[in-house]
Amino acid sequence: DVVPTCERYAVRRLPFARLADGDVAFFERLMPGRVVTGEEEVKPFNVDWLKSVRGCSQLVLKPQTTAEVSQVLRYCHERNLAVNPQGGNTGLVGGSVPVFDEIILSTALMNQIISFDKVSGILVCQAGCVLEKLNEYLEEQGFIMPLDLGAKGSCHIGGNVATNAGGLRLLRYGSLRGTVLGLEVVLADGSALDCLTSLRKDNTGYDLKQLFIGSEGTLGVITAVSILCPQKPKAVNVAFLGCQSFAKVLETFTTCRAMLGEILSAYEFMDEKCMELVERHLKLSGPVADSPFYVLIETSGSDSTHDEEKLNNFLEQAMASGLVSDGTVATDDKKIKASHLRERITEALTHEGYVYKYDISLPVGKLYDLVTDVRARLGQSAKNVVGYGHLGDGNLHLNITAESYSHSLLDAIEPFVYEWTARCSGSISAEHGLGFKKKQFIQYSKPRKAVVLMQQFKAMLDPKGILNPYKTLPSAP
Amino acid sequence: DVVPTCERYAVRRLPFARLADGDVAFFERLMPGRVVTGEEEVKPFNVDWLKSVRGCSQLVLKPQTTAEVSQVLRYCHERNLAVNPQGGNTGLVGGSVPVFDEIILSTALMNQIISFDKVSGILVCQAGCVLEKLNEYLEEQGFIMPLDLGAKGSCHIGGNVATNAGGLRLLRYGSLRGTVLGLEVVLADGSALDCLTSLRKDNTGYDLKQLFIGSEGTLGVITAVSILCPQKPKAVNVAFLGCQSFAKVLETFTTCRAMLGEILSAYEFMDEKCMELVERHLKLSGPVADSPFYVLIETSGSDSTHDEEKLNNFLEQAMASGLVSDGTVATDDKKIKASHLRERITEALTHEGYVYKYDISLPVGKLYDLVTDVRARLGQSAKNVVGYGHLGDGNLHLNITAESYSHSLLDAIEPFVYEWTARCSGSISAEHGLGFKKKQFIQYSKPRKAVVLMQQFKAMLDPKGILNPYKTLPSAP
Repeated sequence: DVVPTCERYAVRRLPFARLADGDVAFFERLMPGRVVTGEEEVKPFNVDWLKSVRGCSQLVLKPQTTAEVSQVLRYCHERNLAVNPQGGNTGLVGGSVPVFDEIILSTALMNQIISFDKVSGILVCQAGCVLEKLNEYLEEQGFIMPLDLGAKGSCHIGGNVATNAGGLRLLRYGSLRGTVLGLEVVLADGSALDCLTSLRKDNTGYDLKQLFIGSEGTLGVITAVSILCPQKPKAVNVAFLGCQSFAKVLETFTTCRAMLGEILSAYEFMDEKCMELVERHLKLSGPVADSPFYVLIETSGSDSTHDEEKLNNFLEQAMASGLVSDGTVATDDKKIKASHLRERITEALTHEGYVYKYDISLPVGKLYDLVTDVRARLGQSAKNVVGYGHLGDGNLHLNITAESYSHSLLDAIEPFVYEWTARCSGSISAEHGLGFKKKQFIQYSKPRKAVVLMQQFKAMLDPKGILNPYKTLPSAP
Repeated sequence: DVVPTCERYAVRRLPFARLADGDVAFFERLMPGRVVTGEEEVKPFNVDWLKSVRGCSQLVLKPQTTAEVSQVLRYCHERNLAVNPQGGNTGLVGGSVPVFDEIILSTALMNQIISFDKVSGILVCQAGCVLEKLNEYLEEQGFIMPLDLGAKGSCHIGGNVATNAGGLRLLRYGSLRGTVLGLEVVLADGSALDCLTSLRKDNTGYDLKQLFIGSEGTLGVITAVSILCPQKPKAVNVAFLGCQSFAKVLETFTTCRAMLGEILSAYEFMDEKCMELVERHLKLSGPVADSPFYVLIETSGSDSTHDEEKLNNFLEQAMASGLVSDGTVATDDKKIKASHLRERITEALTHEGYVYKYDISLPVGKLYDLVTDVRARLGQSAKNVVGYGHLGDGNLHLNITAESYSHSLLDAIEPFVYEWTARCSGSISAEHGLGFKKKQFIQYSKPRKAVVLMQQFKAMLDPKGILNPYKTLPSAP
């Protein structure tokens, strides 16, 4: 069983009220049949997907409407009960499960699509809609979601927005800060903030919704989302390449961006260790000859003939100039799926035992140096040190595996990785957020003044601190 | 001469300190030779580009560094002197000039490029860099700025960010909320907030920079900007079309988006009145036969053969199906410039006398109904009622001209236009901001709760209210 977070990390419980029988009775009246109690029933909500952190909540609430979320928070605010908002519980930094006995507010039943406008491509839906379901719905109408990630089968759009999820399509469609047009949010005191506009442009006052994007449920609970969706590309092509060095991976990127231009929709890389683990644990096989590095390129465009011509021209040049040592192109859906090895690396890693996960932004040129340095530093004390990520966005996923969790290995990794990153003016969390596990390290990427301001925003919007406590911001020393 | 704003609008001066000789002496010591006094010298900084509002400042300061901006604000904060940050002074809502005697803090001399990285396309520069100059600099390196607007020859990038400028490239490259990666900001008390990261992805805490984007200098003074720049497209094509009805303009848009896909970079429309005024006042001639509506389409791509093929296929279909009654395509630079009539409409309008300007976001289908309704309502009392704008973004520029300013005409227009917009859940300011002229109308597009929160943010970041007072947020009733 997973060691409770409060024990493993020696956290001190903040002086929130404790759940009483009267509280449960109140919630039962408010949403009959949608109140989960009982250790076994609550357990899946207490443990994260990685099985790395565990809370001790005794209560899960499943509201269906914004009004219910309002009533829950108004009650909890008055009673000083802490609340842990939870979407699909697919986060990787321990932000989505309680640390102590916070009440879990699940968006699982808030899964209605409110509207979709085919002219503008704007979708409005409740926060609990599953990303993949939304994408399927849109595809039927000739559109897609502007984001895609490995967890799409379970993650909720509200959680995606609350964590400012990045993923595989960011290179092409930009971040959620540009594509999310409106939000409905319930604040800590239960009042609803309706900024759910469906307009591409709106410059009337400060853009309040941005504060909630990426705030990991610490400033408010997102209940509905308005988002701009791109047209479904008529042609999607995938190329899988082998490169003999990271320098060649970089040069291939520059060449590819120049030659593929507007149709380039993803440029992902992985090292040979990743491929080894995917092959070993998931029994998948790589589509090209063994190489130190692999690159996955995706193009999305409106004319398959033009796109294939561009991709073939690029591949010819990349092979002829020796940048790429082996490569294959997949154009039909089946092959594309098969070559999506990249998406399953996270899963393969969990088969190794315990995984220390780092999600780092760096200047692209230095991206792999961190992997090399960590590998050298840890030597035999780690099982595997692997690197992969969204190279086009300067985003490295550094993963270190071991049979089980060990304090001494953690001490060898941290703060080494963070100091290394800070020296290069990188970010210690490119897309995963800070959650519980990384919150104490925020100062490696943000100046003191910024952290103080964040604390002031938190105090203003959630004066009792009941929303997702112990997360995102560092605790007082 | 322009009537002073405080007289025309009967504004009451807030109890800030008044400028004393000792203050000017302090600034002279701080930045010798960069302190402007004297009525004639200060005058151009007191009046907006439209000559519609006029302040009575007696002092312009021209800092060169962030440290100087810090010292200025620390001093003004202590002395309770109000400050009006000013970029290129090209705003259209009276946000960039003082209302009373605010000290003008001009970014004109903060015009240094700090760095540009050719691999990532990330530019870091001071706030006072002129947009067009930045674009020219980038073009030499194979990149462009992600925004473009008519005022590019004088507007400053800091002002663009402070007003969340939209413009002609938004359809393709998205809003500044996605492309601005980092900001350096000096707060009201003179403390500097360094969020000037050059990373595409960074999820470490709340995204503070977003609060300053679009806050029109009321929360802090932007001193430097980090921005993601796209590659310069290898091929740019422009088509200018005539349509017989607005319904056909809409249908042409849907067809065009489907057929041009990823290379579509602008879809602008204008009505015949606009064309008439451009022809009359600027002696330009329209490139196609007279029509009730005109459409300007721009494509930007990486392969001219592919792009032209897509554009020609689209045009053939649009003509054959009767959507478009006349059309012409420009591929070389010279022709492209000639067909940029669209950019000069604002200028042509100023020749008419006084211009009442509205910048509205609406569901695309209803975009032109507002123009028709306003035209019918005003009848002969207006000289001209014209509509044009960024149709692809649902953004209408409604302009009403008269020989000179008249209260009664204003009363016939407002709040009619705002009520009409609110009924369609539109925005009363799509991209121009609220500034001085629109701040009292924020409630037509934002709920009360949101305005209250904005006021709390303002009070937290600028407790004395010295930064760009009388702007953006409604004054107390």
